Amino acid sequence: MQHDLVIKGGTLATASETFSADIGIRDGKIATLGHDLSGEDVIDATGKLVMPGGIEAHCHIAQESGMGLMTSDDYESGSISAAFGGNSCFVPFAAQKPGQSVADTLATYDGRAAPKSVIDYSYHLILTDPNPSVLDELPGVFDRGITSFKVFMTYATRVSDAQFLDILTVARRHGGLTMVHAENHDMLTWMASALADNGYTEPKYHAPARPGLAEEEAINRAISLSKLTNAPLMIVHVSTPKGAELVAQARADGAYVFGETCPQYLFLTKHDLDRPGMEGAKYICSPPLRDTHTQEVLWRHIARGTFSVVSSDHAPFRLDDTGKFSNGRDVDFRKIANGMPGIEMRLPMMFSEGVVKGRINLNQFVALSSTNAARLYGMHPTKGTLAIGADADIAIWDPTETRIAGDMHDAMDYNPFEGMEVTGWPVTVLTRGRRVVDQGELVAKPGDGGFVKRGRSDLSGLTGTRLPETDPATNFGAEILR
Amino acid sequence: MQHDLVIKGGTLATASETFSADIGIRDGKIATLGHDLSGEDVIDATGKLVMPGGIEAHCHIAQESGMGLMTSDDYESGSISAAFGGNSCFVPFAAQKPGQSVADTLATYDGRAAPKSVIDYSYHLILTDPNPSVLDELPGVFDRGITSFKVFMTYATRVSDAQFLDILTVARRHGGLTMVHAENHDMLTWMASALADNGYTEPKYHAPARPGLAEEEAINRAISLSKLTNAPLMIVHVSTPKGAELVAQARADGAYVFGETCPQYLFLTKHDLDRPGMEGAKYICSPPLRDTHTQEVLWRHIARGTFSVVSSDHAPFRLDDTGKFSNGRDVDFRKIANGMPGIEMRLPMMFSEGVVKGRINLNQFVALSSTNAARLYGMHPTKGTLAIGADADIAIWDPTETRIAGDMHDAMDYNPFEGMEVTGWPVTVLTRGRRVVDQGELVAKPGDGGFVKRGRSDLSGLTGTRLPETDPATNFGAEILR
Amino acid sequence: MQHDLVIKGGTLATASETFSADIGIRDGKIATLGHDLSGEDVIDATGKLVMPGGIEAHCHIAQESGMGLMTSDDYESGSISAAFGGNSCFVPFAAQKPGQSVADTLATYDGRAAPKSVIDYSYHLILTDPNPSVLDELPGVFDRGITSFKVFMTYATRVSDAQFLDILTVARRHGGLTMVHAENHDMLTWMASALADNGYTEPKYHAPARPGLAEEEAINRAISLSKLTNAPLMIVHVSTPKGAELVAQARADGAYVFGETCPQYLFLTKHDLDRPGMEGAKYICSPPLRDTHTQEVLWRHIARGTFSVVSSDHAPFRLDDTGKFSNGRDVDFRKIANGMPGIEMRLPMMFSEGVVKGRINLNQFVALSSTNAARLYGMHPTKGTLAIGADADIAIWDPTETRIAGDMHDAMDYNPFEGMEVTGWPVTVLTRGRRVVDQGELVAKPGDGGFVKRGRSDLSGLTGTRLPETDPATNFGAEILR
Amino acid sequence: MQHDLVIKGGTLATASETFSADIGIRDGKIATLGHDLSGEDVIDATGKLVMPGGIEAHCHIAQESGMGLMTSDDYESGSISAAFGGNSCFVPFAAQKPGQSVADTLATYDGRAAPKSVIDYSYHLILTDPNPSVLDELPGVFDRGITSFKVFMTYATRVSDAQFLDILTVARRHGGLTMVHAENHDMLTWMASALADNGYTEPKYHAPARPGLAEEEAINRAISLSKLTNAPLMIVHVSTPKGAELVAQARADGAYVFGETCPQYLFLTKHDLDRPGMEGAKYICSPPLRDTHTQEVLWRHIARGTFSVVSSDHAPFRLDDTGKFSNGRDVDFRKIANGMPGIEMRLPMMFSEGVVKGRINLNQFVALSSTNAARLYGMHPTKGTLAIGADADIAIWDPTETRIAGDMHDAMDYNPFEGMEVTGWPVTVLTRGRRVVDQGELVAKPGDGGFVKRGRSDLSGLTGTRLPETDPATNFGAEILR
Repeated sequence: MQHDLVIKGGTLATASETFSADIGIRDGKIATLGHDLSGEDVIDATGKLVMPGGIEAHCHIAQESGMGLMTSDDYESGSISAAFGGNSCFVPFAAQKPGQSVADTLATYDGRAAPKSVIDYSYHLILTDPNPSVLDELPGVFDRGITSFKVFMTYATRVSDAQFLDILTVARRHGGLTMVHAENHDMLTWMASALADNGYTEPKYHAPARPGLAEEEAINRAISLSKLTNAPLMIVHVSTPKGAELVAQARADGAYVFGETCPQYLFLTKHDLDRPGMEGAKYICSPPLRDTHTQEVLWRHIARGTFSVVSSDHAPFRLDDTGKFSNGRDVDFRKIANGMPGIEMRLPMMFSEGVVKGRINLNQFVALSSTNAARLYGMHPTKGTLAIGADADIAIWDPTETRIAGDMHDAMDYNPFEGMEVTGWPVTVLTRGRRVVDQGELVAKPGDGGFVKRGRSDLSGLTGTRLPETDPATNFGAEILR
Repeated sequence: MQHDLVIKGGTLATASETFSADIGIRDGKIATLGHDLSGEDVIDATGKLVMPGGIEAHCHIAQESGMGLMTSDDYESGSISAAFGGNSCFVPFAAQKPGQSVADTLATYDGRAAPKSVIDYSYHLILTDPNPSVLDELPGVFDRGITSFKVFMTYATRVSDAQFLDILTVARRHGGLTMVHAENHDMLTWMASALADNGYTEPKYHAPARPGLAEEEAINRAISLSKLTNAPLMIVHVSTPKGAELVAQARADGAYVFGETCPQYLFLTKHDLDRPGMEGAKYICSPPLRDTHTQEVLWRHIARGTFSVVSSDHAPFRLDDTGKFSNGRDVDFRKIANGMPGIEMRLPMMFSEGVVKGRINLNQFVALSSTNAARLYGMHPTKGTLAIGADADIAIWDPTETRIAGDMHDAMDYNPFEGMEVTGWPVTVLTRGRRVVDQGELVAKPGDGGFVKRGRSDLSGLTGTRLPETDPATNFGAEILR
Repeated sequence: MQHDLVIKGGTLATASETFSADIGIRDGKIATLGHDLSGEDVIDATGKLVMPGGIEAHCHIAQESGMGLMTSDDYESGSISAAFGGNSCFVPFAAQKPGQSVADTLATYDGRAAPKSVIDYSYHLILTDPNPSVLDELPGVFDRGITSFKVFMTYATRVSDAQFLDILTVARRHGGLTMVHAENHDMLTWMASALADNGYTEPKYHAPARPGLAEEEAINRAISLSKLTNAPLMIVHVSTPKGAELVAQARADGAYVFGETCPQYLFLTKHDLDRPGMEGAKYICSPPLRDTHTQEVLWRHIARGTFSVVSSDHAPFRLDDTGKFSNGRDVDFRKIANGMPGIEMRLPMMFSEGVVKGRINLNQFVALSSTNAARLYGMHPTKGTLAIGADADIAIWDPTETRIAGDMHDAMDYNPFEGMEVTGWPVTVLTRGRRVVDQGELVAKPGDGGFVKRGRSDLSGLTGTRLPETDPATNFGAEILR
Repeated sequence: MQHDLVIKGGTLATASETFSADIGIRDGKIATLGHDLSGEDVIDATGKLVMPGGIEAHCHIAQESGMGLMTSDDYESGSISAAFGGNSCFVPFAAQKPGQSVADTLATYDGRAAPKSVIDYSYHLILTDPNPSVLDELPGVFDRGITSFKVFMTYATRVSDAQFLDILTVARRHGGLTMVHAENHDMLTWMASALADNGYTEPKYHAPARPGLAEEEAINRAISLSKLTNAPLMIVHVSTPKGAELVAQARADGAYVFGETCPQYLFLTKHDLDRPGMEGAKYICSPPLRDTHTQEVLWRHIARGTFSVVSSDHAPFRLDDTGKFSNGRDVDFRKIANGMPGIEMRLPMMFSEGVVKGRINLNQFVALSSTNAARLYGMHPTKGTLAIGADADIAIWDPTETRIAGDMHDAMDYNPFEGMEVTGWPVTVLTRGRRVVDQGELVAKPGDGGFVKRGRSDLSGLTGTRLPETDPATNFGAEILR
């Protein structure tokens, strides 16, 4: 077969295999794997790793924060930074404002994304006001190819448990996946007030103001709601050992519960919040950074499969009065914008610290960075793999290149991982067979990326079998939950 | 020493010892333990067990339900039934109504209790509206000798997590103990609606409408709030295996968490809700009855010490239109009054099924029925023991008498344990050295019982030592929680 | 590229992907994946599933039992039955006899296997007498490509804990994997005697004679030995819920511990041992069959990844005096030969009950039946995958064919799964590009199979990171264990 | 009643109560508790604590070690030191030598104890060679009032699992309790050799030579054997967090499993083994000292009731060539005698660090030091309590006296707790109403102590109820285990 493009001589890695082969691409899809393939265009990947392009499944792009602050990255800078970080696709959030219809919400984000993105994209729909009219709109959202929701258990945007149950129920019926930011709002508020009332207002108090206990409680509650409705649930940015154990236990219990963690919880600690002056503000994110013990435990859960994805939770607010300090510099920690960038660092950090240092193998890296997200968010097998027929979403990595982390391609003025030595970087990234980054140079134009119409979440092979109830004879009416 | 009264020849049992001795009583207190004691008055206890009188720590007397329905028992019938059940003291609830001051609440209950009770009494203060003015009143409540609060996580009377934290904090500062009815309100409402909307309205659907998962979630949340504030917490009427495990684990973690279960969860099941016609309504209580597996697990937790007390949760509503059917007979399960009587059956059932059948020993029986409640609710060592100097609150039992459970001395028209064969019954009960029930006859008059001014909850010896935090260097501001 | 053979039009499945493609084979290896491939020979796989051929990693072929009884299957009938069951490769045992050198042991099995096997093969070396001279031989065994050992914790062939430690240490140094039959010998003997001494001698008493507790204890002990030496360990034929949990927990603890279970523990129960007359003897295997609860729990552990492989433990002894009844028919359960056949049923049962019934997905099936065994036993990526460059060990399945299980191609006179309805059967099986079974007909000749020289066990990506010791400053001398 | 002796004005504490009363003693027993008691003799206990005398349940007195070395303490110095440490009774070991009959063993120890002990005593019978003739002797041992056995899982004196099962079975039938030193012998030997072979021979290497893993494995195995036989088991000197958890879990599972720990694991660490020169030899005991994390966890298990007793494991070998260095001074750690003294320090250390520092309350102290031992080792209610009718075994403590730990009354030349500040010391100790130590002076004579004929172990109230088997229909022959 004649190919449009052949990637020659690389070492390929999927979620389960590593092998040497050429990749032949035609019409934007992977057509052939083999040797001595020919094509109109050729990329020499000798000495390189060739993997499915990353899928960034948790990032905030052109989105207003709960405080009403717009992220520094729009779909142009955000997608470019993602591409330089080895991603072929990303799924930021489309956030409903209170009272806003879903249709209007999505139209707003379409307007922000379509003209600008250099890689493929979709949205998770954040629901903050799931009133009956909004619930009525949701089936249509699935038809449109948006099959994941996100809810908050804290912030002004939080939903009640009752609203959460409603959303889980709709999602389950349509094959969607609900994501949750799990922290107990009242516990956070109580702690933050207790600290601030006692004069503990510096950035470092952001950490004790959001104790791990608040996350653990909320994760347990979210899992309970998932179990009640038998609806799949993704706990995002798990930052505590106990939280990870709750996810693992829920899986063992046969629940459709998934977990995500983020590089900041693996490479940074709350000590970073105690940097001099207001530099600690760089490290204010929620849940907060924890400690080195937590890092070790989270790595272990990554290796054993508790976490299906590792995402960046890229939430870019500059260290100036357009961002972190929009409420002023001399404020208590509660007034500083939450979030940090990381969309470009996610995969290099995971490769360098995970694969190079032997904590995970290359196939796990692919699964965590791309394949699992594709499965859970309804894009597999179109995306997330190097199989025949898949989109040619491909990242070519130089596994030996070492750089000291510095400025990235986002619109930010700091990099929380600055100064770290990182080995292994993507050099060329393709979306549907089209070069986005080529040998370290941007070659795609805003708008080249396309909207991905997603399907049902792939839950196959998760639960083995459910244990029978202890006394099924009296599970009166249990059939209504099936 | 000359005694006012001597109980001669009995076998005495305390929370740790069983031995033969006379008890010499003077001025209402235990003055002497020994042999050949003399006194003006003598009770022959040969062949009998002589134990600290029971303390009923969870019962609803002369209290309006959440539906506004008055219990069938007032302090006269309630205290008489309690005394016939082997109790020398009880602690019903004083329930704040929304907007009502604490002072007014307590005055109301003083008026209901003082003229009528035949045994000593105090109240747990139910807080349903902990507004700032109410929180300001609470320190005074401790001065008055009321040192335990109760909150609900469900019903219209529920508190938010934030309010719960406020109450725990006040209680901790003053040495009080907070009790909680732990079920997730939104989960209950969602399930009940799902069932009723599908036509599942008979009494038996009360059970699936309140799934164990809702209790387990709420128990976990309540424990989290207790841990955050380092405040003691009593989980009342635990009805699930997982709930019991959560209490046990919290104790192992060093938290000040206690548990209570009730005879109905040990001797009845949700099958009872499926009795013909509306007879199932007798067995509607919350949390609902579970299954035989649960019974086995709860017994094991009783034996290993997870539960500090076994209480009746006596909530008497007659099977007529003054009670269960005040909303009519032809109603769905949500409209039937919740609760069942049991204040007189609690101790005989626990003795017969626990001690006689070898599930617990006699000393555990004393601990569970009296001593632990005295400790936790601030009445020890005045009450709850046979030690020198303690109130002569004493129950004399015939351990061999067997009866078939039938009518009790309460104001109810049914007994949920009716027909069960029960071995071991109290025959004589004293409060402060004064006979209340004598050889099966009531001899006390309404008003003979007195208010017990209670002290701090005894938390000694609970936790060993707390594990150091994993990274104490960065527990910024942790001292505010000490 | 011109191929020797092309498999056209099938649906391919690997451990992580499912996709449609042709497979081009050249020189016995997979050369190309793509569409419209051409080759000298073609297999039409339209409507079929094309998967890596199964690797049977636990079977007894041409091996004397502990009782000295030769299995009914030799390498000819055994390999043929394996091939009809969808396997391209198998790894039976080479069992050292007491006093026998390893060299002699392997020479014996080479003589049994090489002339007869129709599929590729290797051996796990059973060590029963690891004296110093035998330990000295072991490094040479690795050079020869045999990289897995097996030990017993029961039977006359059992090793002591000290011997087990010696073997683990050697295996770790050379990259080998040690397998263990884990049951506590003394507990088994004590129970069996207790039963037999009380006249409980029928086949069904085989089950209580080997209580789950004996397996659980031994698994825990084996894991402890593995942890001490930091050596990888495979617990074979796990048959209890607690045993599975121990494996899962060891993995979570960062230990190199793997688990295997078998179809008989998923589809049969100890009730089968109670069949009339001596028919129960068919179901005597060790560990014994358990119950339906166990089946459910084991399935769940399969789905969550606790078990890396599902093997047959094919141990064929006919139901006559050459096999089960070699000690006579009228004997107590201790005298009946242990083991049952299953090499041909393993994959169809797992496919039918696992994939078709939705307990696992197709990729998990591939992982459990082939890929994971290839990794752990040092044959990956040569075997166990459909990647470019891998051996063309391929099984083509008709996923819709339904048969009632009956006679198999082994040398046995019964099938323990007889009468079960099974959907999904292999129709054509290749080893290194060579047809062994073609459209249900045997086409290979004895001796066509080759010995597989194996490499190190692939442990990558297992443990994340180890938790630091609680007090490393005093781990005096810990470096000797690295 | 006229009393022989009255203890006036003290604060009494039992396992459940604390109260002020006089104690009237007559004929060596507690006759009266009350006020204003009169007697021929009076002890003024004003300002003092009056508690049941301690029962030391784990100490080596006049016993040859496994190495054949006689302890430095005989029954005279040992019992005197015990008495000064607040004990009214002790239960050292009578150790069978290989081949020795039980009758001969007990006769030997009778000869050692009867003429010398100043306090009451019994023995636990150590079985090292449970041959059939020895097993035949055991029922007679119970008749003689010796109702506890001890076995080792390590040392030359170890028993096999099969022998352990035999002993458990006999003990269960006669109401006895089996104690076990639980460490895996082969793991210890392997580690010690690995260390010594690498030149790690200093005393501090005793710690890594006996890793916690070896204890945890052996505890798990011992519990499994106890469960199989349904026989009660006491795990002595638990020294690891995981070991404690195993005991707690076994109790929760309904097994008759008990735990003991020792002061050395609460107050010393393996750092002490690293003291200069051969001073580390003082701290060689088995299991070895661990770390501060372990101390915290063990305290927590003490508070929650996992451990029924805290014993000294007094094993006195002097720091000279009659003891620690009987194999020379310049030897590797394996040649140094194991054990340390502590019989006199046990209760003061537990009082000072436990009660005074608030880790346990006074009633727990009594339970751990006396009452629980009395119950488990068949001496309750004769001993272990202050109840009417009990032996007047009483210790009077000055709770405020502070001393720096130095020389004790034993025959040792060092005190491992030397230099520690200890608040709370016994001042007067009675055995059966007779003063042994009076105001800090020894007043008893050798031989004043008597042999205590013990009864069945009190297992009441331990297990609640056992969970039904998952599939009882097929528990073929299970009745033989009842």
